[in-house]
Amino acid sequence: MCELMGMSANVPTDICFSFSGLMQRGGRTGPHCDGWGVAFYEGSGVRCFHDPAPCHSSAIAQLIESYPIKSENVICHIRQANVGRVTLANTHPFTRELWGQYWTFAHNGQINDFAAGEGPFQPVGNTDSEAIFCDLLNRLRARFTQRPSQQEILDCLTGACADYARRGVCNLLLSNGEWLFSLCTTKLSWITRRAPFGPAQLRDVEMVVDFQEHTTPNDVVTVIATEPLTSNEQWNTCESGEWRLWQGGETLQQGNVLKG
Amino acid sequence: MCELMGMSANVPTDICFSFSGLMQRGGRTGPHCDGWGVAFYEGSGVRCFHDPAPCHSSAIAQLIESYPIKSENVICHIRQANVGRVTLANTHPFTRELWGQYWTFAHNGQINDFAAGEGPFQPVGNTDSEAIFCDLLNRLRARFTQRPSQQEILDCLTGACADYARRGVCNLLLSNGEWLFSLCTTKLSWITRRAPFGPAQLRDVEMVVDFQEHTTPNDVVTVIATEPLTSNEQWNTCESGEWRLWQGGETLQQGNVLKG
Repeated sequence: MCELMGMSANVPTDICFSFSGLMQRGGRTGPHCDGWGVAFYEGSGVRCFHDPAPCHSSAIAQLIESYPIKSENVICHIRQANVGRVTLANTHPFTRELWGQYWTFAHNGQINDFAAGEGPFQPVGNTDSEAIFCDLLNRLRARFTQRPSQQEILDCLTGACADYARRGVCNLLLSNGEWLFSLCTTKLSWITRRAPFGPAQLRDVEMVVDFQEHTTPNDVVTVIATEPLTSNEQWNTCESGEWRLWQGGETLQQGNVLKG
Repeated sequence: MCELMGMSANVPTDICFSFSGLMQRGGRTGPHCDGWGVAFYEGSGVRCFHDPAPCHSSAIAQLIESYPIKSENVICHIRQANVGRVTLANTHPFTRELWGQYWTFAHNGQINDFAAGEGPFQPVGNTDSEAIFCDLLNRLRARFTQRPSQQEILDCLTGACADYARRGVCNLLLSNGEWLFSLCTTKLSWITRRAPFGPAQLRDVEMVVDFQEHTTPNDVVTVIATEPLTSNEQWNTCESGEWRLWQGGETLQQGNVLKG
């Protein structure tokens, strides 16, 4: 299994603190040593960093930890390979352009014998994760050649996720730079930080940050992770099948693909 | 105008030396201070770094200069904006997936009022460069839904380039990870280094490298750049319309899109 982390915020926010905790799981406090990657949206652009080397000892990870890249939507993944070799092409997050937007995807879980449906999007590597992403985009592109409404996208997306959730383990994060979508089938937690901000203590490494020193009273920042990253805060645990559409740190819509 | 740099090699090779010279042109010895980017292929994967900040003072550029990422195909670009604002979305190189391969593109020049033809590939930013790239991929995808032969790709590619070259300034580098394609309409130079290797002196900064210490006798490494990067070597100057298909540091095919 792998570790997912996402962020949705209403102001450009860096992830240095959360990343410092997460990267310890990339070979030190966790077994996820088969590479890592992170995507930061800045306006309509996206900056991705990928490294097939273990996260905890990566020069690029050290840059991300120390160089504050501010973003409203972030997707991060550290990998423990089960399907697909340890190569750059198999390193999440994956990115494709659809309707003039960059879409980014990371996955934790496994769907056996998954092949993407027909369409213009094809996997480059050989993970089930990238095949699921291509399948999702092919479904969207087959239904809408031009960009539809957010609700139409969401209906298509949750329909596809209902299929995936019934076929295997599929915790995922997806963003088009406007919003972040999360799906939990087995394990995903989240926390929303807003005023009054206080101190937070990482679980995986000796580090405390006082968010009050780095925020303004209107900031809303949600962090989503496979397992809680801090030890002194109350994280919310998603139930199986739960999806949420995040924007500006808030849940815009939510539901459950395994119910109703 | 911008600065292009590409590399084609028959063994994974780092670009730290050439990049050290090029990055000086990003705001120090050159005016190209509107961001920069670089794409390194590793197998079928590609690692891209983008920064809308000036290259010569970028923390990410310093990482690239000091952290040897070895690749057989590299495309690098530093930007002086003429069309399109200075944003991450407008920062070259651009990447798209076609036929299960990542295609990467960087452009130097300008084609006024260029709009990409119909097809699944749409620009995210608002540069003529990204529109040209999407147009090129839409032409390839319209003609071939599955991956054709290299010769069929090349025929389609050079046909499109003949159009572009007649409409404006279009120096470009393009790769799918297997090969590197270069087109010159106004300014492009290249050098192939092979045994016996010797010392090279950068033009833009006080730095000498003795390639003999870093190579084996069978290595073949071609560097392509808008202007020669070294002062003590003989670079080849492309003529207007000249294209070359590079693989393993050698020219596989060449021609001229402005001649019969």
